[in-house]
Amino acid sequence: MSFDLKSYLTERKAQVEAALFAGLPMEGTRPAELSEAMRHAVVSGGKRLRPILCLAAAEAAGGKADDAMYAACAVELLHTYTLVHDDLPCMDNDTLRRGQPTVWAKYGEAMAVLVGDALQTLAFETLARTPSLAATPRLVSELAKAAGASGVIAGQVEDIQFAGSPTRDIINYVFQHKTADLFRAAVRLGGIAGGASEKNLEHLSLYGNNLGIAFQIIDDLLDARQASADDKPELTCLAIMSEEEARAYAKATTTEANAALKNLPGETVALAALAQELLSRVM
Amino acid sequence: MSFDLKSYLTERKAQVEAALFAGLPMEGTRPAELSEAMRHAVVSGGKRLRPILCLAAAEAAGGKADDAMYAACAVELLHTYTLVHDDLPCMDNDTLRRGQPTVWAKYGEAMAVLVGDALQTLAFETLARTPSLAATPRLVSELAKAAGASGVIAGQVEDIQFAGSPTRDIINYVFQHKTADLFRAAVRLGGIAGGASEKNLEHLSLYGNNLGIAFQIIDDLLDARQASADDKPELTCLAIMSEEEARAYAKATTTEANAALKNLPGETVALAALAQELLSRVM
Repeated sequence: MSFDLKSYLTERKAQVEAALFAGLPMEGTRPAELSEAMRHAVVSGGKRLRPILCLAAAEAAGGKADDAMYAACAVELLHTYTLVHDDLPCMDNDTLRRGQPTVWAKYGEAMAVLVGDALQTLAFETLARTPSLAATPRLVSELAKAAGASGVIAGQVEDIQFAGSPTRDIINYVFQHKTADLFRAAVRLGGIAGGASEKNLEHLSLYGNNLGIAFQIIDDLLDARQASADDKPELTCLAIMSEEEARAYAKATTTEANAALKNLPGETVALAALAQELLSRVM
Repeated sequence: MSFDLKSYLTERKAQVEAALFAGLPMEGTRPAELSEAMRHAVVSGGKRLRPILCLAAAEAAGGKADDAMYAACAVELLHTYTLVHDDLPCMDNDTLRRGQPTVWAKYGEAMAVLVGDALQTLAFETLARTPSLAATPRLVSELAKAAGASGVIAGQVEDIQFAGSPTRDIINYVFQHKTADLFRAAVRLGGIAGGASEKNLEHLSLYGNNLGIAFQIIDDLLDARQASADDKPELTCLAIMSEEEARAYAKATTTEANAALKNLPGETVALAALAQELLSRVM
């Protein structure tokens, strides 16, 4: 396969970040510390995987990536707000993220609560800017369902409430809701913005959901390599399976993700290469 | 005037609460504590002033109140999430609200952060259920603008950052954003859902904004009657004006609010009576 995933990701990341940063309150906007802290949270982001998946899904559905740009930014803003709140002292109590101080460590707890709140609001404001007015109600509804009390927040609640020995049930629940729900929403939103049929949205759902599960298993495997003895206990699939089983599980879900791409009308090479690349990190 | 405001408010409150509670996760929905805590936050609500304004605005614009019911619930969910987060230890550190334990006091800080987050998400999910698909993008955009980093959250940031002697500038800023922005959005959303023209949306904006300012002045006047010496200092307009001046200010903004109702095509008696009733509490 001659597809150059690395260049693709670099280019897409730059496009996403340009749109994302343009939508943030400008530096100095009153209240100045709020604008600064929101920018700090968003600018020090990572690989922009979810928005890139959103854009690629629009193309896989036969639409244009541009039509999904606001949806892509909305998904990333939503993801970023959850990180800002997850880092709070009352949650994971993390002071560093990607080598930078977390929002609460730099600006205080109250500001971090408000920055997270404002980023969630901005996610929906951004989503409502999607050019296709006809698609907007569904985009808002689907992102809200994925992000809300039966989605990402449900996963986070069970994650923080977990104590003792993890069971397969709780691992499945947290993987599904805390991680896979937003991956699935990312590709579905891209598909909806790109004009996908219901049938093709189902294919995208299968891809996104399986990729989300695979992503979390792979994350657990990579974390295990770096973990030190004094790390706090985390909900990891390695509590209920061996590393070898986890690798097989990641491979199986990746295979299922990529199988779902077969029937899509548009270009799916990026989605397939991305899933394969994630898997390769633990193989 | 023979309009019976008390019966009107009682009936509207019952309608709003029926719709509001029906949209919450049912008791026992997994994660059970999240559903319970969300219900606790919403059920122990107050007068439901903002959603009632939203419904009345739809009628004032010549539309039907029913068309604005999801918008009304969205505004109340939005307002409720801000209260849940405002009560947190890192913000106002309040353990009681309307005689009930606050969410963090009953369920812990982490849960209160997540309950607030989930209520904000639910606000947008609910708004996207508005029957008029054509109105939805604008409804989402306007609620997000009013609630976000240049609206309610901006007001809250300046409120918590305030130290020392309040100036007229900061009082105006916090009154406008923390309070009036959501009052204005409530009536605008009602107007949009009810099919208001741009001109009539401007009338509704003037009403809602002035009512919001009046509401906050009146709130400060009522608080001053109950305040005890050991209360923490709050940003109150009585720091920059006498009680008599504040009453005159409340009266002037109420008069301006009600003057804006004159040109609306629908029934405005409820909106006018409501503004007058709020004012009468300090006259």
